[in-house]
Amino acid sequence: MSAYAAPVRDMRFVMNSVVGLDRVATLPGLEAVEPDLVDQILEEGSRLAVNVLAPLNAVGDKQGARIENGVVRAADGFAEGYRQFIEGGWNGAPFEEDWGGMNLPWLVSTALQEMWQASNLAFGLCPLLTQAAIDALREVGTDEQKALYLPKLVTGEWTGTMNLTEPQAGTDLGSIRTKAEHAGDGTYRVRGQKIYITWGDHDMTDNIVHLVLARSPDDIPGVKGLSLYIVPKFIPDADGRPGIRNDVKPLSLEHKLGIHASPTCIMAYGEAEGAVGYLVGEENRGIEYMFIMMNNARLAVGLQGLAMSERAYQQSVDYARNRVQSRALAGSPSAVAIINHPDVRRMLMTMRAQIEAMRGLIYDVAAMTDIADRHPDAATAKAAQQRVDLLIPVVKAWCTDTGVEICSTNVQIHGGMGFVEETGAAQHYRDVRITPIYEGTNGIQSLDLVGRKVARDGGAAARAFLDDLDATLAALKAAGDDTTMAATHKRLSVARDALSEATDWVVATMPSDAAAGAAPSALYLKLFGITAGGWMMARAALAAKDGSEDPEYLKAKMTTVRHYADHILTQAPALTDAITADGGTVMSFAVDQF
Amino acid sequence: MSAYAAPVRDMRFVMNSVVGLDRVATLPGLEAVEPDLVDQILEEGSRLAVNVLAPLNAVGDKQGARIENGVVRAADGFAEGYRQFIEGGWNGAPFEEDWGGMNLPWLVSTALQEMWQASNLAFGLCPLLTQAAIDALREVGTDEQKALYLPKLVTGEWTGTMNLTEPQAGTDLGSIRTKAEHAGDGTYRVRGQKIYITWGDHDMTDNIVHLVLARSPDDIPGVKGLSLYIVPKFIPDADGRPGIRNDVKPLSLEHKLGIHASPTCIMAYGEAEGAVGYLVGEENRGIEYMFIMMNNARLAVGLQGLAMSERAYQQSVDYARNRVQSRALAGSPSAVAIINHPDVRRMLMTMRAQIEAMRGLIYDVAAMTDIADRHPDAATAKAAQQRVDLLIPVVKAWCTDTGVEICSTNVQIHGGMGFVEETGAAQHYRDVRITPIYEGTNGIQSLDLVGRKVARDGGAAARAFLDDLDATLAALKAAGDDTTMAATHKRLSVARDALSEATDWVVATMPSDAAAGAAPSALYLKLFGITAGGWMMARAALAAKDGSEDPEYLKAKMTTVRHYADHILTQAPALTDAITADGGTVMSFAVDQF
Repeated sequence: MSAYAAPVRDMRFVMNSVVGLDRVATLPGLEAVEPDLVDQILEEGSRLAVNVLAPLNAVGDKQGARIENGVVRAADGFAEGYRQFIEGGWNGAPFEEDWGGMNLPWLVSTALQEMWQASNLAFGLCPLLTQAAIDALREVGTDEQKALYLPKLVTGEWTGTMNLTEPQAGTDLGSIRTKAEHAGDGTYRVRGQKIYITWGDHDMTDNIVHLVLARSPDDIPGVKGLSLYIVPKFIPDADGRPGIRNDVKPLSLEHKLGIHASPTCIMAYGEAEGAVGYLVGEENRGIEYMFIMMNNARLAVGLQGLAMSERAYQQSVDYARNRVQSRALAGSPSAVAIINHPDVRRMLMTMRAQIEAMRGLIYDVAAMTDIADRHPDAATAKAAQQRVDLLIPVVKAWCTDTGVEICSTNVQIHGGMGFVEETGAAQHYRDVRITPIYEGTNGIQSLDLVGRKVARDGGAAARAFLDDLDATLAALKAAGDDTTMAATHKRLSVARDALSEATDWVVATMPSDAAAGAAPSALYLKLFGITAGGWMMARAALAAKDGSEDPEYLKAKMTTVRHYADHILTQAPALTDAITADGGTVMSFAVDQF
Repeated sequence: MSAYAAPVRDMRFVMNSVVGLDRVATLPGLEAVEPDLVDQILEEGSRLAVNVLAPLNAVGDKQGARIENGVVRAADGFAEGYRQFIEGGWNGAPFEEDWGGMNLPWLVSTALQEMWQASNLAFGLCPLLTQAAIDALREVGTDEQKALYLPKLVTGEWTGTMNLTEPQAGTDLGSIRTKAEHAGDGTYRVRGQKIYITWGDHDMTDNIVHLVLARSPDDIPGVKGLSLYIVPKFIPDADGRPGIRNDVKPLSLEHKLGIHASPTCIMAYGEAEGAVGYLVGEENRGIEYMFIMMNNARLAVGLQGLAMSERAYQQSVDYARNRVQSRALAGSPSAVAIINHPDVRRMLMTMRAQIEAMRGLIYDVAAMTDIADRHPDAATAKAAQQRVDLLIPVVKAWCTDTGVEICSTNVQIHGGMGFVEETGAAQHYRDVRITPIYEGTNGIQSLDLVGRKVARDGGAAARAFLDDLDATLAALKAAGDDTTMAATHKRLSVARDALSEATDWVVATMPSDAAAGAAPSALYLKLFGITAGGWMMARAALAAKDGSEDPEYLKAKMTTVRHYADHILTQAPALTDAITADGGTVMSFAVDQF
């Protein structure tokens, strides 16, 4: 069992001093967002995460969600936890006040989201999916749909789900078979099975709003024939209250490695009379709408990687402070806490450095989302959106892969105790393993990065990123002869050149030989993540150098930046060596020899 | 659920063509070991692993071992599996025929051991621990003890255990409190609790021979006061048959992340009249004897890392061949098996390359063990022993860390199915996680490497290793303009220089500042592993170039070597950069800022 404390100090530093809350707070509609208010919000959110959600984490793992007589029951305490969550208004943090939201910038709601995901990943998935449904309806719902569903979803009175996957259609959505037919009254009847539906059913709210990707009546094959439908669990009556039960039900729950408290449902639509569905937006544009849901969800899953890392790191630090074992290498009168042993310290420093880099990157992308959404200058908004699009796959895959690594290190720091379920370290190791898989596997993210995000525009977005990085390099150089600045400049320059070289390779290779370009795409994504994280750490160092508050924290930040430079940024050239190696070993290997 | 096929073709190639079974088969006492005989033995062992042990793996995970009325019951089928295992004589593979063994070289018994561990890790631990007990008794037992226990242990009629850990004494054995007192009749009475005792109790055999590290009667503090005692579960009677029940019992089983079928016991010694114990060797030399058990066990655990990797790789290949999803990037009329998608192929190639490198290294160490044990020339034997000692921590830590990575990749290749328990990918991910922890955490291995194995002799053993590597580099060069040879030569040279530089740093740093030297010790160990693996891959390429049998396999081997060179060896310089960075970030970071 491990306690969780929201890392509010670092969150604040990143928001205020590195990413720039001030840049965001001057955007139209966000003028009320003052640092003091944000501090209060973070403190209050932290209380819920720490006191309510975190203690449910082990309970949920042990008990899990269960299905009884066709109804899913959440684990003990989850319904009450959810009630407190929505009563605090947290579900609507980034959404308009008109719908019952808090109207906070994504930058701030991302920090809150970090808390929910860190305190209880299985719980946190429920509002995360609701948010995805809100995103789609806000963007392309009719006014009537908005008026009916958004107040319920934004407050969290109802939850949302995202129904894409079928047994034969995981990554390849073009092979979806779930089918919608005209009902003759403007509604549709949806029939088919969906799998891996997160929080597909539960007993925490009166209604659930399923967003279902299904083949349109006109039966065009492939992804071009898919539309998005609202299929509510209970069909709202004339007053918008849950009315008659729709023809949709959970068939069974998956028996999973982790996130046991998050019910992963096989859902049956329309086994009897057909599930009543309402078209979202236009017919046959379902895939496009799905990406509206998916993009934010991918950022949120990347954030889960960070959140789980932070949780695991805190548990490691706690254990390492308290576990006394062996004398110090430099000599000590008796055994010391293992936090004093060099290899344990190294593990903690490496966890910490990666966490701070991930936090910087994710919060920066969140701020860019605010700018993209709200900046009055169209070119600025467009550039911000381009940056967000570029970094979505990087955040999703790099932060979740790193999360798996860090949760594994947490087990290691616990020694034998880490392998015993009681400590909770094993739960984090199990739970986090889903994050590189769902919302598009990390392999798909890598392909998205090299294909759609880098090669398609001839490397323009990637080079714009490198230009920003160069500005930071210049600032590091101008910062004088401070050793951390100098060391970070040296390592970041090398990483920058490695990324630049690899980018050139990707841009040159993809158009002529997509398979060859895709073969090392995961390495390219890692290189991008490491370098972008290093860029954020450099910006943190520049901010820390000018900081005055909490000098011990700022000093620690400088050491952490240096550690990232020495231990993580140094990995960059190796990745470029592998990416640009002309061995062609991946695609030339004879399949029957595997 | 996944089938397992023993990788006999690669095992044979490594044994015969890379490591040199012929070198081993000319050693005194091993003259009967012909390649044909070895082939037969491997085929027969493979049948047991594939048909008997592998099918029990998922059963064991699901059911687990259980404790009932103070007795541990093995999971269903395990007792029968064990019976078949010992009836085949497999338990005694590397031991003398006098004791009922097969008198096989370690090289061959290591290949067999790989099969047991790959097919069923939880099962495989039982004979592994018996082997450790045999090692100690063979080396330092009295003739009487040998005559009484060795025939039972070598045949596997009885099993052995290793009792070191106590709640306050994990890594730090000096704080062991279990106490032995003279009984006045030459025997001892042992009292205390031990934790994490693998197969500490079970119902598969008539007796269990516990080897227990306990404080000697004279009560010298620290590790210098520890002796090793035999504490049989049933005290053998005059005829060597299990007689009266000794005062030792399992109190409870740990609830673990994985290896559920391997009962991990809390053992109580002497709660009533005191457990009858028999001193092994001399008093207060327990730690030394423990290392006899530990050294082979560490190699065996490193082998588990390889074995689990092989199992996971096979499952990945099988899934990737059968799972059809999305069209090929280069275009295809319909969806293809995912083995055709570049990122999946890359994952498979990287798994494969690391597996073959690990197999090469472990089998080479096994052959060195045979030479150290048996070579008539004392200097040759001593050099071989020095090499074994140097590489034990490398094999243990590098192969288990890599095993965790590869079992995680296997989950990834399965996508959502990997996170569902039914496929078995999740089990491997859970099971393998113990391997970097037990038999000395990988942090302890790293410390052992930089301290006792590299710095203590001023780098002599490490430089002898580099000399051998240089000879291979020269052979690569002499092999002409073959591109694989040239590429491997280039990458291996760079890695060699990186290891050499890091070794100089370790040798220079450890004597003056052990904490600073130990801080990056895990990185140094990884660098050593990667480079040593590259050396073995280079030797494999040289052997494959001259090979004639099975040309498709040899061609695949060359591609795999090249992949290792491009994707793994390239990581070496980054590790040296981090090791030799003078940031001092690990030890200078303020503890209260974590």
